[in-house]
Amino acid sequence: MKLLIIGGVAGGASAAARARRLSEDAHIVLFERGPDVSFANCGLPYYIGGAIVDRDKLLVTTPERLRSRFNLDVRTQCSVEAIDRTAKKVRVRDASGREYDEAYDKLLLATGAAPVRPPIPGIDLPGVFTLRNLQDADRIKERLDGGVKQAVLLGGGFISLELAENFVRRGILTTVVEKNDQILAPFDKEMTTPIVRELAAKGVTLLLSQSAEALEQTVEGLVVCLSSGPRLPAQLVVCGVGVRPENELAVDAGLEVGPRGGIRVNEQLQTSDPNIYAVGDAIEVKDVSLRVPTQVPLASPANRQGRVAANNIFGHEVQYRGTQGTAIVGVFGQTAAITGASEKSLRQADRPFGKIYVHPTHHAGYYSGAEAMTLKLLFDPTTGRVLGAQVVGGAGVDKRIDVLSVAIQAGMTVFDLEEMELAYAPQYGSAKDPINMAGFVAGGLLRGDHPQISVEAVLATPLAEQPFLLDVRTPQEFESGHIPGAVNIPMDELRSRLGELPRNRKIATYCQVGQRGYLATRIMLQAGLPAVNIGGGYKTYKLYSSCPTKSFLCRAGEGPKVSLRDARRELLERT
Amino acid sequence: MKLLIIGGVAGGASAAARARRLSEDAHIVLFERGPDVSFANCGLPYYIGGAIVDRDKLLVTTPERLRSRFNLDVRTQCSVEAIDRTAKKVRVRDASGREYDEAYDKLLLATGAAPVRPPIPGIDLPGVFTLRNLQDADRIKERLDGGVKQAVLLGGGFISLELAENFVRRGILTTVVEKNDQILAPFDKEMTTPIVRELAAKGVTLLLSQSAEALEQTVEGLVVCLSSGPRLPAQLVVCGVGVRPENELAVDAGLEVGPRGGIRVNEQLQTSDPNIYAVGDAIEVKDVSLRVPTQVPLASPANRQGRVAANNIFGHEVQYRGTQGTAIVGVFGQTAAITGASEKSLRQADRPFGKIYVHPTHHAGYYSGAEAMTLKLLFDPTTGRVLGAQVVGGAGVDKRIDVLSVAIQAGMTVFDLEEMELAYAPQYGSAKDPINMAGFVAGGLLRGDHPQISVEAVLATPLAEQPFLLDVRTPQEFESGHIPGAVNIPMDELRSRLGELPRNRKIATYCQVGQRGYLATRIMLQAGLPAVNIGGGYKTYKLYSSCPTKSFLCRAGEGPKVSLRDARRELLERT
Repeated sequence: MKLLIIGGVAGGASAAARARRLSEDAHIVLFERGPDVSFANCGLPYYIGGAIVDRDKLLVTTPERLRSRFNLDVRTQCSVEAIDRTAKKVRVRDASGREYDEAYDKLLLATGAAPVRPPIPGIDLPGVFTLRNLQDADRIKERLDGGVKQAVLLGGGFISLELAENFVRRGILTTVVEKNDQILAPFDKEMTTPIVRELAAKGVTLLLSQSAEALEQTVEGLVVCLSSGPRLPAQLVVCGVGVRPENELAVDAGLEVGPRGGIRVNEQLQTSDPNIYAVGDAIEVKDVSLRVPTQVPLASPANRQGRVAANNIFGHEVQYRGTQGTAIVGVFGQTAAITGASEKSLRQADRPFGKIYVHPTHHAGYYSGAEAMTLKLLFDPTTGRVLGAQVVGGAGVDKRIDVLSVAIQAGMTVFDLEEMELAYAPQYGSAKDPINMAGFVAGGLLRGDHPQISVEAVLATPLAEQPFLLDVRTPQEFESGHIPGAVNIPMDELRSRLGELPRNRKIATYCQVGQRGYLATRIMLQAGLPAVNIGGGYKTYKLYSSCPTKSFLCRAGEGPKVSLRDARRELLERT
Repeated sequence: MKLLIIGGVAGGASAAARARRLSEDAHIVLFERGPDVSFANCGLPYYIGGAIVDRDKLLVTTPERLRSRFNLDVRTQCSVEAIDRTAKKVRVRDASGREYDEAYDKLLLATGAAPVRPPIPGIDLPGVFTLRNLQDADRIKERLDGGVKQAVLLGGGFISLELAENFVRRGILTTVVEKNDQILAPFDKEMTTPIVRELAAKGVTLLLSQSAEALEQTVEGLVVCLSSGPRLPAQLVVCGVGVRPENELAVDAGLEVGPRGGIRVNEQLQTSDPNIYAVGDAIEVKDVSLRVPTQVPLASPANRQGRVAANNIFGHEVQYRGTQGTAIVGVFGQTAAITGASEKSLRQADRPFGKIYVHPTHHAGYYSGAEAMTLKLLFDPTTGRVLGAQVVGGAGVDKRIDVLSVAIQAGMTVFDLEEMELAYAPQYGSAKDPINMAGFVAGGLLRGDHPQISVEAVLATPLAEQPFLLDVRTPQEFESGHIPGAVNIPMDELRSRLGELPRNRKIATYCQVGQRGYLATRIMLQAGLPAVNIGGGYKTYKLYSSCPTKSFLCRAGEGPKVSLRDARRELLERT
């Protein structure tokens, strides 16, 4: 068996190591265009920022080790130029420019994805970078070490926000320009509010619904010209507007690709040519929540795919199960994580869903250091099956998203979440874990003993038709902010003041997070009043009402409320 | 509906709140013997130690709030003396000593469990405590505030170790006396080694296989007299040797109880009397892993049971699913967590099992601050179904035990763990998470491509019959400690040195954690050599070889190797 692997990072290196474990005899060649194999690309922003000091730590393994330990024929700085499927060989060009053919029995494409560079004037100017590999990181770091006061990040995705944090750590005035009306595209917009707040608090300038139309070189450095007018000075620009599959080899060889360019594979990760497999960021995979094809450029799935492909190549049939897009990002002190379907992907797919929000702390409130989180759960409105989840907050977010990710993989329902047994001691969780709480709220909703109305439904209703808004928090909580038009009757007085409520108008009640509102709803329903609870309470209302959608500027110490005019003025002052 | 609830802490208070949500009309009486309801008993050790400063924080709710918010008839310092099942009433004695009858439609027993006080002379001396409620904590705290230099904890269970940490925080010389040969009884012994090490490092004196036969009062304070001779001076002794269900009311009323005293309930948490339900530490529950009756005195299940019982009482039929004993304890910087069956419980139940160990870090090794953990996985040797897990280490232990707990609840297999999609960014995990790694190792074992031998099997084999022990680590690693009798051939030289290996003797190979050993095993097998990998490598060997089983003394900076004679000498010197 002669196996050629094109691409030596996550999927390719995993496949190579697995292949060797399965066969000592196989001739396994690993072609890598760059000088490094299996480097930790997820660590690059932290190396740039200085949280990872030792560059060598990013080299998960080296070509030398792959040779000595796995007896692999590793050829770095070798680029594969073409595949001849009929002759079962590839055309290779090595570092010296020499070209040669290499035959294969099986071929594995692990070519990855390349950062998109928007086709605007000036995109190729010195000082404008993308971040894909160690050499990119070296170049950005070198530029920073040379002295950068202002940086602009094009795109508000995972890598951009990680870079923003690391730039701020280095004392750089950082602006993020996002052409859509929200950051972190996979998330539902309202769930990005805590991250927007965190960026603002840490001094990152965030411009939403804005795009760069050109980059210019001036005497003082670069200028990013926004379509809306402002000109942002910068000594460094990084494009993080997305990636596209590196599918040229596959396309040229006539292999099937999907509409977004991902190489088509079956469940054995075999392409339309049975002798060619493909893994990683270059392929199209099955979204297990929505059962549609998707592209998920993440390291974990790539690694697992490498293993699966190697198994299949060596006759151990295994199916790749698809992905549910489980992802996590740290932005300063906040973490945002997602698994499965989002509300927006469910709407796009025209799939019915229920949703709830809870706002628990990550461990027992009575133990010091409890950090807040918001958990959004999406589920099938008939069966209660969990379809997706998003969690944003401080510590413990990663744990909850993993638990929910497994729940989705297991086909569990919100009723399973109610009964879920999780480890509890005050430093680690609560006797009723956030997961249980989410189950209780969703289960109550589905059983009909907890009718809810969504914040958006309230916000979208014309004032004249709005339900009677009942705030059951304390007067102090009410004073410090409430939904406009709401009337305050504290929960503990409700039973004795039911007479004050309208009898022939829908009552939408709420508290801070939903729990008192739930009890109030139960009391009113049992008293014959048409009550519903505003799901997730005032905290959820705030997620929506303070979630920016248009151009604006966030600055340290301010809410995300500054107008673009102010933004421009601020920018002009700064320049 | 008139519902009486006896006991107002976790299960009782949860049931009462749930009951009120289900019915505004019901008359719900909550009897509590003590002055507090719904206090955070899991926080008591941390209140004693000072990590929780504000005593009020331990009051999850108050009788006043239960009255005002839930319209409950809360009667604290009221003890229920007897149940008259025929007349459906209970006999109550209030704080003033007045006795009266209270009728019920349904009765819920949430009487909890009481700490066992071993029947030894002096157990009732002043200065000897148990820890169950806030008043106990107050008394211990008062004693500590009065000046305690030395404390002895009888029992090496969860609460004792939490107290040990908190005593040390307060500068108290602390000795733990455990009559069994291991601490943390639910765990397999070797998995307690890192905790023993942590206790030793933090200066806790741990005496295993030792028991107190008497407590004496001397002029200087208390003395704990061990059966083996030593006399331990102490100004404070806390008994933490276990709890027994408070089942007197149930037994007197003729309700069925199990062999260990737990009140028998069906899946609706109904006792042998259909009008009487029971929840919490007082009941016998189904162990979902082993499908045997058990008793699990933990807060989380009690809370869920309270909810389930209330649902059933009010006609919403729900089944309690049983428990898998998911538990977690922090001991200084280490965390030990368990879910499902242990090796020892599987052996006791005579159930076949497979097991593996992995020793990963809690997040990407290249990102600073990665902490080590050991994960032990138990699974069905035929189907691969996960039966139980134990995780011990630093950060991230709680996350992995929760994921594995859910995997067990979902009936997942080790093959599911291999494919499990979990959130990865370098601060939170690894592209191949510890859970995936455990799946890979267990899956490889079950598929037969990774034959293993256990450390115990190697240790138990007479020297003459032992396999050829091959250490494939680097010479440096070998020098700093290896299994006696092992020969060192570094992994990267193995392919070229296969000729040095015996051809007709079993070869047991190992590395540090099992990964290089696995590759070495694959290479040797494919070369026709009868190789097996020592599961979990040298780190697992160390768990066994440095796990104390007999009486000994741990002291700061020393391994757990001091003999009892030294222990005695040390103790005499200290006194």
